[in-house]
Amino acid sequence: MRKRLFMFVGLAVLLGGGQLFAQELTLEEIKFSFDMIWLIFAAALVFLMQAGFAMVETGLTRAKNAGNIIMKNLMDFSVGVLAYWAVGWALMYGSSSGGLIGTDQFFLAGADSVIYRDWMFQVVFAATAATIVSGAMAERTKFAGYLLYSLVISAAIYPISGHWIWAGGWLAEMGFHDFAGSTVVHSVGGWAAMVGAVLLGARRGKYVRVKGKVTVKAFPGHNIPLAALGVFILWFGWYGFNAGSTLSGTDPDIAWVATTTTLSAGAGAILAMFTSWIWFGKPDPSMSMNGALAGLVGITAGAWVIDPLGAIIVGAIAGALVVLSVEFLDKVLHIDDPVGAISVHGVCGAWGTLAVGIFGDLAKVGSGLTRAGQIGVQALGIGAVFAWVVVTTLVLFGSLKAVGALRVGDTEELRGLDISEHGVESYSGFQIFSNM
Amino acid sequence: MRKRLFMFVGLAVLLGGGQLFAQELTLEEIKFSFDMIWLIFAAALVFLMQAGFAMVETGLTRAKNAGNIIMKNLMDFSVGVLAYWAVGWALMYGSSSGGLIGTDQFFLAGADSVIYRDWMFQVVFAATAATIVSGAMAERTKFAGYLLYSLVISAAIYPISGHWIWAGGWLAEMGFHDFAGSTVVHSVGGWAAMVGAVLLGARRGKYVRVKGKVTVKAFPGHNIPLAALGVFILWFGWYGFNAGSTLSGTDPDIAWVATTTTLSAGAGAILAMFTSWIWFGKPDPSMSMNGALAGLVGITAGAWVIDPLGAIIVGAIAGALVVLSVEFLDKVLHIDDPVGAISVHGVCGAWGTLAVGIFGDLAKVGSGLTRAGQIGVQALGIGAVFAWVVVTTLVLFGSLKAVGALRVGDTEELRGLDISEHGVESYSGFQIFSNM
Amino acid sequence: MRKRLFMFVGLAVLLGGGQLFAQELTLEEIKFSFDMIWLIFAAALVFLMQAGFAMVETGLTRAKNAGNIIMKNLMDFSVGVLAYWAVGWALMYGSSSGGLIGTDQFFLAGADSVIYRDWMFQVVFAATAATIVSGAMAERTKFAGYLLYSLVISAAIYPISGHWIWAGGWLAEMGFHDFAGSTVVHSVGGWAAMVGAVLLGARRGKYVRVKGKVTVKAFPGHNIPLAALGVFILWFGWYGFNAGSTLSGTDPDIAWVATTTTLSAGAGAILAMFTSWIWFGKPDPSMSMNGALAGLVGITAGAWVIDPLGAIIVGAIAGALVVLSVEFLDKVLHIDDPVGAISVHGVCGAWGTLAVGIFGDLAKVGSGLTRAGQIGVQALGIGAVFAWVVVTTLVLFGSLKAVGALRVGDTEELRGLDISEHGVESYSGFQIFSNM
Repeated sequence: MRKRLFMFVGLAVLLGGGQLFAQELTLEEIKFSFDMIWLIFAAALVFLMQAGFAMVETGLTRAKNAGNIIMKNLMDFSVGVLAYWAVGWALMYGSSSGGLIGTDQFFLAGADSVIYRDWMFQVVFAATAATIVSGAMAERTKFAGYLLYSLVISAAIYPISGHWIWAGGWLAEMGFHDFAGSTVVHSVGGWAAMVGAVLLGARRGKYVRVKGKVTVKAFPGHNIPLAALGVFILWFGWYGFNAGSTLSGTDPDIAWVATTTTLSAGAGAILAMFTSWIWFGKPDPSMSMNGALAGLVGITAGAWVIDPLGAIIVGAIAGALVVLSVEFLDKVLHIDDPVGAISVHGVCGAWGTLAVGIFGDLAKVGSGLTRAGQIGVQALGIGAVFAWVVVTTLVLFGSLKAVGALRVGDTEELRGLDISEHGVESYSGFQIFSNM
Repeated sequence: MRKRLFMFVGLAVLLGGGQLFAQELTLEEIKFSFDMIWLIFAAALVFLMQAGFAMVETGLTRAKNAGNIIMKNLMDFSVGVLAYWAVGWALMYGSSSGGLIGTDQFFLAGADSVIYRDWMFQVVFAATAATIVSGAMAERTKFAGYLLYSLVISAAIYPISGHWIWAGGWLAEMGFHDFAGSTVVHSVGGWAAMVGAVLLGARRGKYVRVKGKVTVKAFPGHNIPLAALGVFILWFGWYGFNAGSTLSGTDPDIAWVATTTTLSAGAGAILAMFTSWIWFGKPDPSMSMNGALAGLVGITAGAWVIDPLGAIIVGAIAGALVVLSVEFLDKVLHIDDPVGAISVHGVCGAWGTLAVGIFGDLAKVGSGLTRAGQIGVQALGIGAVFAWVVVTTLVLFGSLKAVGALRVGDTEELRGLDISEHGVESYSGFQIFSNM
Repeated sequence: MRKRLFMFVGLAVLLGGGQLFAQELTLEEIKFSFDMIWLIFAAALVFLMQAGFAMVETGLTRAKNAGNIIMKNLMDFSVGVLAYWAVGWALMYGSSSGGLIGTDQFFLAGADSVIYRDWMFQVVFAATAATIVSGAMAERTKFAGYLLYSLVISAAIYPISGHWIWAGGWLAEMGFHDFAGSTVVHSVGGWAAMVGAVLLGARRGKYVRVKGKVTVKAFPGHNIPLAALGVFILWFGWYGFNAGSTLSGTDPDIAWVATTTTLSAGAGAILAMFTSWIWFGKPDPSMSMNGALAGLVGITAGAWVIDPLGAIIVGAIAGALVVLSVEFLDKVLHIDDPVGAISVHGVCGAWGTLAVGIFGDLAKVGSGLTRAGQIGVQALGIGAVFAWVVVTTLVLFGSLKAVGALRVGDTEELRGLDISEHGVESYSGFQIFSNM
């Protein structure tokens, strides 16, 4: 029995089985409570980034695949949380075996309130890495194959490299610094997206080869306002992602982290806008939005050790870089990434991780390395995680491809995955051009 | 006069009439402050669920009624907060008359900062119960009638059964446990939705009887991405709804509650997806989304007393249940619920309430009952609230129907309620098939 | 190196360069931590209002300009944060020169964690003022000109009048009270919007003069659900805007502020609905939504000093006022404000500021003035800020107009700014009536 009104005075004595603190908190309990509400607040914000990714990816692709994108985003989170509960957390934060992998706490065995708190904060990061991939693989990936992928990345691929960096593993021991996950989260998602997009191949009609010359067709997104909403939601969620990564509600640097995050995002949007303006002749909305995300991804590794001016530089470079990278992947390498996920999360994640070495306050980083040493270790970490993700996702997506579970057929792709995979239309009643 | 810059040091002395604590907080003031910011944070998240409901209900119905749904969602909250301020809070949390009804604090008379805090947290729950109904009654209910309904449920129907459970009333005395409102909030909304949908009758053309055989027509929703956004926003808000229902910012179980909430929602989405896959041959987006909501509704009663594995089971069953319930109501009972609100909130709310008896840690429940006894009391509470809501809403909607204030005319329904009730189009400029 | 798992015990000793408190917090550090997490939480919510404004403005205008509105909203925030970092903060909160303007802390020189915290909270207010303007100037303003405007308002116009009121400037010295910015933020945005709309002139075809008689054409918004989502998001963000403006996480009046904010918004929506019902014959969705915003803007100045009943009155008057003001500006003055920003933010901001004098608890206001005196000072502040903003934006927008950087050409306007300014369509694939 629980009486809501008697909440302030004497609730503790009314409750039988609870673990409530007594009315008079100790200083340790106060510290604990700050951390608890701060991390759960932050976790909620990071959770909402799922909505942001769903809206960005839906808005930047075609109407006939909108419901499929939505389903992938909903289900990669749903599958991911169960996988990270059963296995992922254990591999990431269980007792380390040689700095390579965690080995206990499967199914959160033996968890107390600190572990639940940390699991809650970490699971939304795992889900972020997972969901990045759906954008790059949009409009042509089989739904069943995508479900399996979600399971594997959340249960094993993400947690293991995460263990190396955030759980005292071998990269952490070497002094590698990634505050909130430019590499741990974003690059993992970005490189997996890259392997997926390459193995899938481009959407039909994207690159048309005529007499040895490839014409690149643009498939514009069907809902720019929805994509923009997604970007704003992601930016909002990033205050949980980065400021929450202080891991402490009493850290005076919470505001510092929020400030560098804000400035980097703004600089990223502005530079991407100007870069697109110069490159295409007009300021491009999608590129500008991706510029904001690029700035956010870029500052994520160094948000705590880079100062505001440094954050602006990091974000600005990320903003320019994302435009050039999107163009390079599309026009030169002919890798079809419908939303630019590889560039935003993979490339700018790597850039941000490197930027820790270049711009970071080494005293705060605390590795004891020289600047050249720090840059070297950052580069080593980028490379190690790249190799890990590329190899494992090659096996994963390669296996799916080998058994025909990776890509839908041509007819299905042409009709759209909403009809062919789910039997629904996403915009029932609206007249939509049939050839889109 | 208020100087924003002098906020940290000495603000208290600058202010004339405020009640600020002195610079040196007592331990009691610290406890108070944790509870305050936690509950206002949670209240804000629960408020945003209004946006979630609005988007889900809009997305899952037809374009010609979108503005009307929006108006109902906006106005049931607006009317509801005034009603809950004037009357609802008093009936729910005023001094109890025999465990049946509260009797004082009308217009928040005599409120102090604790009462304002609790009112703020509770009013968003009241508004949640109210807004659930608009989905089931969508596309055919008169706007004026809906306004009156909003007033009555927020002022009286919801608060009175709430008093029984959350304010030390007769069900609380018997040991009934509903942590965050599977019954108090969701079932109340769900059963009211059921009565409303039955009294209204189906949308024109939904069930066509030819030679004694009924053909059931589907009216697909017009905006799946918007509905999905609504589901993500609701899920986000649920961290306030459930974790906030610890009612204390220093409760170490905040993370436990967030964890069980997350796992149940994930399991619900997955099981609903697979159930729809088996049932329809393809994984259905709307059903999967409703599965996530079913998992959330299902764990709401037991989020604090059910462990993670139990939460997954509760959510999984809710996810399967919601698909079967939606189908049963539609195909067998021919109750026309455009968004599945009766199944999600009524049926899964009842399931979650019962699950407290089955899976709950009885020591934490603290009722002193045996497991069989707890299950019995949970069932009793489900039945009592069902009876209360069905009887009162029968009177309410029956009266509206008797005076012709419940349902719009056939012409209005055909044209769409946006034009007929509000004189606007929701998607001006878009070509929309006229027969939708 | 940073080990995420060792966060609770002993993190402080692991970290080299951080400023973490020791495990045992002092009472002063506890106070500091409450304020920190409260203000960063609130800042995040206020940030999300950017999404709210973007959705409201997009939804209430035409599909052919949606991407342009989005770009303006994204870029005014991005430009604004850099401007407010470099210059705006200094002019607003730097050491005062005669109560007129701040004079140091450019580029946040010498900032500590308190300054970063306060900057983070303030920058989102500055950005709110800036973004209000884009709605009133929608569908015809040159993008490049808008960028320049964003820079100037965030760097100078907003900060200087803000200094007068929130940084101990001359209006503050006189006893002017504006708790969370009805004048400081909303009226500044609203009056700038008015000057912009007047200098731009109306959208083509809006006011057609035939034989001396002007016919007023309505350009209905293209996406009412998106606009409604924006309103809900804004309302959500307002809990950060107003309750956060206690500036303290230990202020017992946090709940009071949230309560008055909620009630005023509800009353505003209801009164606007009824006013539009009487005025147009049907309850109008856009007007009702603007009524909720009007109630929010109206209570912002007095949320801390006006009681719940007073808040309902303030909101109700704002709700009626906004409908009449929108009609008056459109039908009588022929000022073309596509979204009603002048009425919502300018007019209702002024009303709310005046209402502090009428309904405010003078002991809490703490100015020592009589009621007549307080009303007079409030009126003086309204007038002074009106004059400041009108003069400066006349110069700003006048200069842009003089060099041809304010308004797009007729062809561009007809085709839509998405194509002409950005080379994209916002709803690729959807059939949209060409004459819209």
